[in-house]
Amino acid sequence: MRVHNFSAGPSTLPVEALEEAKEEFVDYHGAGMSLVEMSHRGPEYEAVHDDAMTLARQVFEAPDDFEVLLLQGGATLQFAMVPMNLLGRGASGGYVLSGAWAVKALDDGGHHGEVYAAWDGEPSGYTRMPEPREVEVRPGTRYLHVTSNETIGGIQVHEWPDSGVPLVVDMSSDVMSRRVPWGRFDLVYAGAQKNLGPAGSTLVFVRRSVLETTRRDLAAYLRYDVHAGARSLYNTPPVFAIWVMGKTLRWVRDRGGLAAMEQSAQAKAGLLYGAIDTSDGFYRSPVEEASRSLMNVVFRLPSDELETEFLTLAEDEGLVNLRGHRSVGGVRASIYNAMPMAGVEALAAFMAEFRADRA
Amino acid sequence: MRVHNFSAGPSTLPVEALEEAKEEFVDYHGAGMSLVEMSHRGPEYEAVHDDAMTLARQVFEAPDDFEVLLLQGGATLQFAMVPMNLLGRGASGGYVLSGAWAVKALDDGGHHGEVYAAWDGEPSGYTRMPEPREVEVRPGTRYLHVTSNETIGGIQVHEWPDSGVPLVVDMSSDVMSRRVPWGRFDLVYAGAQKNLGPAGSTLVFVRRSVLETTRRDLAAYLRYDVHAGARSLYNTPPVFAIWVMGKTLRWVRDRGGLAAMEQSAQAKAGLLYGAIDTSDGFYRSPVEEASRSLMNVVFRLPSDELETEFLTLAEDEGLVNLRGHRSVGGVRASIYNAMPMAGVEALAAFMAEFRADRA
Repeated sequence: MRVHNFSAGPSTLPVEALEEAKEEFVDYHGAGMSLVEMSHRGPEYEAVHDDAMTLARQVFEAPDDFEVLLLQGGATLQFAMVPMNLLGRGASGGYVLSGAWAVKALDDGGHHGEVYAAWDGEPSGYTRMPEPREVEVRPGTRYLHVTSNETIGGIQVHEWPDSGVPLVVDMSSDVMSRRVPWGRFDLVYAGAQKNLGPAGSTLVFVRRSVLETTRRDLAAYLRYDVHAGARSLYNTPPVFAIWVMGKTLRWVRDRGGLAAMEQSAQAKAGLLYGAIDTSDGFYRSPVEEASRSLMNVVFRLPSDELETEFLTLAEDEGLVNLRGHRSVGGVRASIYNAMPMAGVEALAAFMAEFRADRA
Repeated sequence: MRVHNFSAGPSTLPVEALEEAKEEFVDYHGAGMSLVEMSHRGPEYEAVHDDAMTLARQVFEAPDDFEVLLLQGGATLQFAMVPMNLLGRGASGGYVLSGAWAVKALDDGGHHGEVYAAWDGEPSGYTRMPEPREVEVRPGTRYLHVTSNETIGGIQVHEWPDSGVPLVVDMSSDVMSRRVPWGRFDLVYAGAQKNLGPAGSTLVFVRRSVLETTRRDLAAYLRYDVHAGARSLYNTPPVFAIWVMGKTLRWVRDRGGLAAMEQSAQAKAGLLYGAIDTSDGFYRSPVEEASRSLMNVVFRLPSDELETEFLTLAEDEGLVNLRGHRSVGGVRASIYNAMPMAGVEALAAFMAEFRADRA
C-alpha cells in the first residue's frame, strides 16, 4: 500500500512516473538493454535528453531568450557556480538571508566573489520573507540572490524584491509549483529532488545575454556557457535522473502545467492552514501569514509530548515523514506537486481528530 | 532478448543488479514509497549509503588511511576539484598527457592551479602510455596526474610512473577491473558509468593525511574535507545512482572481487587481441602492445567500407555499440566487468567468420 509521504525532500513523486520507469528499466523499448547502459551520445538517450529539455521549456513557459541546462551537484554546487560565473571584477552579489539555505548560498559565494547580505531575517528568527522595500541593494550589484522557499522555516516569497537588479533565484523547493515572472530573472536554479524528480540532477534556466559575459577562466564543468553550448551534454549526464524528470514534467504538463499546480498548491496548503487557524490555538504556525509556504506547512502543538504523540499516531495512519527539520523541531507537512489532495485531506482529518480527542 | 552491449560508457551493467533495482523500485522493501522518494537523512537511505561506502572500501581493499567519497559531476568536475583542493601557493601538478581525457584534465586544471605536462603522447598519436623513465616531474610538484585508461585510444597504464611524487589517478574507465597499488596514490577518482553503476555519481578515494592540507577557501561542494566530514551527506546525494552502485559493488564482491575481475579482464581482452594478432593483418590494433587496454579493445579493418559492413552485420548478430569514438573511427569493443565472456566469445567468433568470408 502506498503511504502519504510528507518528506521535505527527496519527496513524493508521481507514482505514474515511477511505475513507467520501472516497466521500462531493464529492457528499454525492446533495445535489449537498459537506458542507463546506453551511450549518452546515442539516439535513444539523445531523445530522452531533448524531451526533458523541451518539456522543461514548455511547462515553465520559459521565453526564448532563456537557456535550459541540466547539471549535477544540486543547488549546493550552484552556490559556487553563480558567483564564479556572474561576478567579474568590481561586481557584487546581494543575498536575501531568509533562512539556512540562503545563508549557505552567501557563505559559499563569498569564496568566489564579492557578496553581501541585502536583508537579514535572522533577527526575526527566519519567520518571514522581506517586504520588497526592506531589501537594500548596494551600487555595483550584479544580481540579487533570492531563495524562493525555505523548507526549514516554511516561508515563501510571494512578493518578489523589486530593486532594479536582476534576480538569481534558488527555486529548489517550490520549483514548478507556480508561474515564473521571467522578466525579473537572470538565472533560476533548482535541485531536482522535490517537485522535479529523483535527486541527482539540477535544472538551471539562464538568460542567453548573461552567457555572453560569464567568466571563461574556469574549468569546463563550472562554466554555464560550456553546458549551454553543448546542450548539457558536455560530459556524461545523470541519465536516470533526467529520464524520470522528463516523466515528471510530462505528468505536470498533462495535468495543466504551472497554473494547475499553483491552484492545487493553494488548495492543499489552504486546507492545512485552515486546520491550523481554526484550531483555537491548538495548532500554531510560527510563520508570518504573508510569508506562509504553500510547499512546507510548518506547525507546532502545545507541547513536545503532544508533538511526539501526533507524529507517532500519524505514522500509524500512513501519514509519514511529518517530523520538522532537526534544527527547529515541530511538525512539517511538505505537500509538493505529487502529494495528492487525498493525502492532505487525510492529514487535515487526522489533525481534527487528534485535537478533538485532546481538547 | 538481452544484446551484447559493447558501449564505451555508459555501458553494460550486471543484469542481476538492474533486475533487483526494478523489483524494489516503486515500493522499497514494503515502505509504501520508492527509495528515491525518501529523505536522505532517513534510516533506509542511510543504510543504502553506508552499504555502498563499506562495499567500496571492501571491494577495493582500500587501506584505513583512505576516505571514500561519493560525489556528483563525474570525472569532469574532478578536473577542477583536484587542483582547487591540492594546489596551494608554489605547488604544481604534473599531468601525463595520454589522450583526450588527460588533456581535458590539464586544460581544466590550469584555471585553478599551476599545472604542466609531464609527458606528452600527442607526437606518437596517443598510441601508448609512457615508460616510467619518460615522465619528467619538476621540482615543487604536489602530484602527478595519470589517466589509467584512455577509452578513445584504447591504451592503459600497466606500469605506474615512479617519480617519487604521489599519484592522482583518473580511473574512470578501468576502475574495479584490477587491484590498486594504494601506496603510490594520494587520490583516485572515477565517474561511475563504466564499471561502477549508472551515470550520476563519482567515486573518490582520498588519503586522510591529504585532507589535512586541502584548501578551505572554497565553496562547500568543492571541498573534499567537507564531504569527508559529512560522510558524503553534506548535500542531497544522487540516491538512485548510489543505490545501484552498491548493487554492482556487491555483484563484484560475490564474484571474487578485484582479483577475479582482473583475471576475467585478462581472459576477455586476451581473446580479442588474439583474434586480432592471428588475423594475418586483416584486423589491426593501432596501439603499442605494452599499452593495450583490457577495457577498450580498439582495432581497424582494411578499409572504411569493411568497417561499416562489419559494424552493420555485428549489430544483426546482437553485438551492438562497436563503433569507434567519432574522433578516431574504426571498431572499439568495450568489455567492462559486466560484459560476460559469452559476449566476447560471440564477438571473437563473428570476427573469425567475417574475416573468413572476405579473405
